Amino acid sequence: MANNGIENQVKTAVIRAGIVGGAGYTGGELLRLLLHHPQVEIAFVHSSSNGGKPVHFVHPDLIGETELHFSTTISTDIDVLFLCSSHGAARKFMENYTGNAVVIDLSQNFRLKKDSVLEGREFTYGLPELQREAIKGSRNIANPGCFATCIQLALLPLAQEKKLTSPVHISGITGATGAGQSLTETSHFSWRDSNVSAYKVFTHQHLAEIRQSLNQLQPTEIPAIHFVPYRGNFTRGILTTSYLQTELSLVEATALYQEFYASHPFVHLASENPNLKQVVNTNKCVLHLAKEGDQMIIISLIDNLLKGASGQAVQNMNLRFGLEETAGLKLKASAF
Amino acid sequence: MANNGIENQVKTAVIRAGIVGGAGYTGGELLRLLLHHPQVEIAFVHSSSNGGKPVHFVHPDLIGETELHFSTTISTDIDVLFLCSSHGAARKFMENYTGNAVVIDLSQNFRLKKDSVLEGREFTYGLPELQREAIKGSRNIANPGCFATCIQLALLPLAQEKKLTSPVHISGITGATGAGQSLTETSHFSWRDSNVSAYKVFTHQHLAEIRQSLNQLQPTEIPAIHFVPYRGNFTRGILTTSYLQTELSLVEATALYQEFYASHPFVHLASENPNLKQVVNTNKCVLHLAKEGDQMIIISLIDNLLKGASGQAVQNMNLRFGLEETAGLKLKASAF
Amino acid sequence: MANNGIENQVKTAVIRAGIVGGAGYTGGELLRLLLHHPQVEIAFVHSSSNGGKPVHFVHPDLIGETELHFSTTISTDIDVLFLCSSHGAARKFMENYTGNAVVIDLSQNFRLKKDSVLEGREFTYGLPELQREAIKGSRNIANPGCFATCIQLALLPLAQEKKLTSPVHISGITGATGAGQSLTETSHFSWRDSNVSAYKVFTHQHLAEIRQSLNQLQPTEIPAIHFVPYRGNFTRGILTTSYLQTELSLVEATALYQEFYASHPFVHLASENPNLKQVVNTNKCVLHLAKEGDQMIIISLIDNLLKGASGQAVQNMNLRFGLEETAGLKLKASAF
Amino acid sequence: MANNGIENQVKTAVIRAGIVGGAGYTGGELLRLLLHHPQVEIAFVHSSSNGGKPVHFVHPDLIGETELHFSTTISTDIDVLFLCSSHGAARKFMENYTGNAVVIDLSQNFRLKKDSVLEGREFTYGLPELQREAIKGSRNIANPGCFATCIQLALLPLAQEKKLTSPVHISGITGATGAGQSLTETSHFSWRDSNVSAYKVFTHQHLAEIRQSLNQLQPTEIPAIHFVPYRGNFTRGILTTSYLQTELSLVEATALYQEFYASHPFVHLASENPNLKQVVNTNKCVLHLAKEGDQMIIISLIDNLLKGASGQAVQNMNLRFGLEETAGLKLKASAF
Repeated sequence: MANNGIENQVKTAVIRAGIVGGAGYTGGELLRLLLHHPQVEIAFVHSSSNGGKPVHFVHPDLIGETELHFSTTISTDIDVLFLCSSHGAARKFMENYTGNAVVIDLSQNFRLKKDSVLEGREFTYGLPELQREAIKGSRNIANPGCFATCIQLALLPLAQEKKLTSPVHISGITGATGAGQSLTETSHFSWRDSNVSAYKVFTHQHLAEIRQSLNQLQPTEIPAIHFVPYRGNFTRGILTTSYLQTELSLVEATALYQEFYASHPFVHLASENPNLKQVVNTNKCVLHLAKEGDQMIIISLIDNLLKGASGQAVQNMNLRFGLEETAGLKLKASAF
Repeated sequence: MANNGIENQVKTAVIRAGIVGGAGYTGGELLRLLLHHPQVEIAFVHSSSNGGKPVHFVHPDLIGETELHFSTTISTDIDVLFLCSSHGAARKFMENYTGNAVVIDLSQNFRLKKDSVLEGREFTYGLPELQREAIKGSRNIANPGCFATCIQLALLPLAQEKKLTSPVHISGITGATGAGQSLTETSHFSWRDSNVSAYKVFTHQHLAEIRQSLNQLQPTEIPAIHFVPYRGNFTRGILTTSYLQTELSLVEATALYQEFYASHPFVHLASENPNLKQVVNTNKCVLHLAKEGDQMIIISLIDNLLKGASGQAVQNMNLRFGLEETAGLKLKASAF
Repeated sequence: MANNGIENQVKTAVIRAGIVGGAGYTGGELLRLLLHHPQVEIAFVHSSSNGGKPVHFVHPDLIGETELHFSTTISTDIDVLFLCSSHGAARKFMENYTGNAVVIDLSQNFRLKKDSVLEGREFTYGLPELQREAIKGSRNIANPGCFATCIQLALLPLAQEKKLTSPVHISGITGATGAGQSLTETSHFSWRDSNVSAYKVFTHQHLAEIRQSLNQLQPTEIPAIHFVPYRGNFTRGILTTSYLQTELSLVEATALYQEFYASHPFVHLASENPNLKQVVNTNKCVLHLAKEGDQMIIISLIDNLLKGASGQAVQNMNLRFGLEETAGLKLKASAF
Repeated sequence: MANNGIENQVKTAVIRAGIVGGAGYTGGELLRLLLHHPQVEIAFVHSSSNGGKPVHFVHPDLIGETELHFSTTISTDIDVLFLCSSHGAARKFMENYTGNAVVIDLSQNFRLKKDSVLEGREFTYGLPELQREAIKGSRNIANPGCFATCIQLALLPLAQEKKLTSPVHISGITGATGAGQSLTETSHFSWRDSNVSAYKVFTHQHLAEIRQSLNQLQPTEIPAIHFVPYRGNFTRGILTTSYLQTELSLVEATALYQEFYASHPFVHLASENPNLKQVVNTNKCVLHLAKEGDQMIIISLIDNLLKGASGQAVQNMNLRFGLEETAGLKLKASAF
C-alpha cells in the first residue's frame, strides 16, 4: 500500500495538464496514461457529477496510484487541456473557455475544416501520421475518431500516391467501449455477449473526416467509400479490412507503406495475418497487406481507446510540446 | 432422474436413422435434434474413437436423454444415414458404402456438380429454399456449407430475377464451432477470447457452391463476389452483410424477397436491424434489407450448427421422407 | 416466411394462459416455452410499457413464431396466469386481482410461509422435487428463486435423511440474466465482460427460502449456511458447489440421491465432473457428488431462466393441470 | 515503423537477463515486461522449438518492439536467468545448469522447503510480502504459484497475528491463461466460452505452499483450509474469497492489514467491493475486508500472469539487484 512511486518520481520538464470530462471512458484512459507519463503532472480532473470524490472511486483500477479527487472548477494554471466531454458538451465548453492552454479535444466537434474555427481559435486535425508538423505548431487540436484513425492509416499511403482510383470497400468491427459508458439496450451485457450486429451501414459519421484526409493527400476526386461497421462482443479494439482495385503489386504496395510509415513509431507492417489482440492495450496500429487478383486488401488494427482516442491525444501532446513522440506510450500489451 | 419421456414417447411413422461421425460437433447437434424428433428413431451412432462409450460421456448435455452407446459398426437396417465425418473421411466412407439408406452428407465432398457423382450415386445439393422438389426425390443429399447457406439465402431472390448485375461485396463473421472441435492455435480460448481476425479473404472455399447456386437461377454471367470472412469470439452463429449496386427500390426488393420465401418456413424478413442472437439455437434464417443510394444491403443471420449444418440436414430428411418440413425443428432460441 | 406451423398445430386439451410482465427476461422465456407447448394457448401477454406492439419487436428471436401483440388489459378468460413482474409489482398486482385463474408468481413475494397468504389466497412453494403433490392441488404457486433452486436440489436429499448436521459452505456463480434487464453499472457489457465479482456475501436473499425448505424436511435445527455468490461473465446458468462434514460415504450418498430423485425427470446425477453448458437452455438440474476426507461435495447446475425461473413455472403448470411433467420442456441444449 | 525507442533508450545499471522457455505464456509476459524495464537488457530468449524465429512471430503483440530472435543456446554472460519451462522441464534444466546467474524459477519445482535444495543450490520462496529480505540475499528464487499468491496475500496478516484459529473456507476463479497454452478439451474456445466448472476441489496443488507460508508466520497449528477453484471464461485474473470465524472486528482487521502491507507497493486495501478488472494487466493485489456475524471475509484479486507469475518474477529480480521494487512494473491497467 506504499505509494508505488509513480507520483513521487522526479519528473523533468513538467507539463501541467487538466482534464475535463474525467469520469468517462476516454477521460479514465487519459488518467491511466498521464499518471505514468514521465513529463506530465495532472493539475486537475474535472467532473461535474463526481466533484469531490477520489478519482479511484470512479476508476477503481487506479487504486494506489493517485490521491487525486475530481474537481468542479477549471484551473487556468495549466499547459494543456484535454476535453473528454461528449460531442455536444465540448463545443459548449469551448464557447466559454478563455484560458491559454493548448486544447486537445477528443470529441468530433472540430475535426472537419468547416467546423474547425471557433471564437478565433482554429483546430488542427490531430492525426500525427498525416500532419505531424502542423500539430507541432498548433494550439488547438481535434483528435480523430477511432474508426477514422484505423481506416485512414490503412489508406493514407495510397492517397499520397493518388492510387485511390476505384471504389473502396471496408468492413470493420469495434469493441463496446467505443460506444462509451452510457447504458443502452446494445450496451447491456445480456444483449451484447456472444452477439454481433451491423449498424450505420454506409452512414457512419467518421466517413466525413476520412474523406477529408484522403482528399488532402489526393486532391483529385476521391472514389466512393462503402463502410459496413459491426458491433463486436469484446471491449477494446477495432479491426477493419479495406480493399480496392489497383494495378499496384504487393511488392510495390509494401514498399510504399514502409516508406510512408518509416518515421512513424506506432504504425507497423505485419507480414503475417494479424489478430486484434496484438494491439489491445497499446498505442500501435498494425497493418497487413495482401493482394488477390487485382484487389489490394489492407487489414488495420488499433485499440479504440488508445490510438483511437486517449493514446493519440497524448501522442499529439508529445508532439506539440516537443517531447519524444512515444513518451508515456510504451505500453505493455495485454496480449490475452 | 426418471427417463424424461423422450425415448418412451410413442413415435409415429418412425424413420430409422444412423449417424457416422457422431462424436463431432455436427454429429452431436444431430443427436440433440433427432432425440426430440417425433418421427425418428436413432438406430446407431458410429464413432471409431469412442466405440462402446455412452453417448453422454462425449456430449454431456445429453445426460438423462439417452442410453445410447457409440457403435463401431454400421447397421444396414436404417432409412437414412447422416455422414458427419470430416471432409476427406466422408468421401472415403462413401466409396465403400453399399447400403440402401438415403444418405445426407454434411461435408463439402459432393456439393459441387463436378464432384457430385460417385459409384453410380448422384448427390443433390440440399438447400431446400433453392431446390425443395429435387431434394424430395433424391436418395443422396449434399448438405450445404454454413457460410454458403447464409450468403445464398441473402442473394437467391436477386439471382432469380437476374438482378445480380454488378459486383457483390460481402463481409461476415462466424462462431468458433464452425471450425469444428480440433484443437488449433485459433481455437484456443486464450487466443480467441475478446479477439477477432480476418481469414481466407477472397478465397473462402464456400464461394464455389455459392456461385453454382446463383448461376442455376441466373444462367447469364454471375458478377465478381468479394467475401471477407471473420473469426468471431462467440461459439454459435453467422452474420453476413452483402451489398451491390441495383436499380431495384427497397419496396420492390422487399416484395421480391417476401414472395420468394413465402412458402419457406425458416426464412424470415425482419423490418428492424437484426442481431445474431435472434437465430442462435434455431433453424431460422433472418434477413434484413436496406437501401443506401444505389446500393442494396442484405443482412443475413443463421446458426451455423443448425440452419448451417445439422438443422438443415434434418430439414432435408423431413422433405425427403414426406414429413412436415419443420418436424423436430421448432426450437426454443437461447436468446441470450 | 410461411408460418412455421407452431400456431397452426392442433393442440389437445388446451390450457389458456395469460402472462403479466411479458416484456422482461422471464416473460420472454415463458413465451418461448409456451409457444411450443403442445397443450397451451397464450390468451394474452400484458406489458404496460409495450401495449400494442408485436411481441417480436421486444423479443426479436420470436420472429415468425407468433403474431401476438402486447395487451394492456388482463382477460379473465384464462386457466393460468403467470406473473413475471418485478418483486414489488407482483404483490401490488395480486392485491387487486380477482380472477379465478391458477396463479404462478415468479417473484419472491410469496415464497416464505410468513408472506404466503394474501386476501384469502395461500401460495404453495413451487419446487416440484420438494412438494409435487402440494403443487398439484394448489391454485397459487410461488415459483422458487434461481440460486434457491440450484442449492436446494443439492441439499434436499441430505435434509430428508437429517444429515445436515454441520455448517454448509456454498459458493456459486450466476449468469447476467439473473439480474434482469435493468441497465446498471454491473450489467454494462464493458464492465462485466471478462470480469468477475463477489456480491451479497453471506446475505443473499435466497437463503431464507433455502432454510425454509431444508427445515421442512429436517425439522430439527438447520446448521449455518455460508453462501458466497459471484457475478459471472456469461448470460445463462448457475453453478454452485456445496460442502459439509458428514460420515456418509460417497456410495451411501450416491444411493441416497439416486433414490430421492428417482421419480423426478429433470434432476440427473453425473458421474463425471460437470460443466455449466450441460444444462444451458434446458430445464435440467445436473448434480455431481464427491468426497474428500470427511467432506461431502455437491456440485449443482441449472439454467437460471429455465429450471431457475420460467421452465420451472411451466413444470408447475404441468403438474397443476395433470399434464405430463415434461410437456413443453424437452429442450435442445445449446451445448456451446 | 520507426523503432519506437524502447531499445534505443539509455538504460542505467543494466542487468543482463536470459529467459528459458520464452515461447510460453509466462515467457512472453516476461518479455513484455523486460523490454520496457529501464534497467534490464535481454541477453537471450531460449526456445527449443522456435530457435531462429523472430520473437514477434510467436508473440505477435511485440511487433515493432524488438528484433530479438529465439536462441537455442544458453549464454552464460548474464546476471539473471528466468526459467519459464514447464514444471518437469525446469528441474531437469537445473540439474545440468552450471552458470553463476541468479536463477528465478517460475515453475513449482522448488517452492516447498523439502524440494528447495538441488546440487548445492537452495531456493528461496519468492513472495516479497512474506520475505523480502531473504529474497534480497538469495541467488535462487522459487516464484510462487498464482492461486498461492492470491490466497497468501489474503491470509498472511492473520497468520502473523496467530489468528488462523478456525477452518478457512476459500473459493476462487481463474482465467484461462493460468492453464498455459497447451491445447486441451477445457482450453478449447467452444468449450470454455460462456462456461464455468469446478476442478481439483480440495486438492489443488498450491495448498501445500500456502500452508507452508502460513505456518512460517504462525508456527502453531494451521487449521483446515478448504479450497474450491473454478475455471472462468476469461483469460486473465484470479479472484478468491476466503472466510473464517474470528473475534477480530472489522476495524481491528483493517488496521492489521494496513500495517502489514504499509511498506509493500503492490498490495492495496479497497474500501469498496472490488471487481477483477481493477487488477488485470497490473502487478497489483487488491484486498477487501468485510465482516458478517463472527465471520471475517477477505476478497483478493491479482492478475495471474503478473503478480501471479511474471510480474512477481520481475519484482523479485528488482529486490535481488537492489533496484526500485516497482521498476518496470508501473503498468497501465487494461480496465475493460
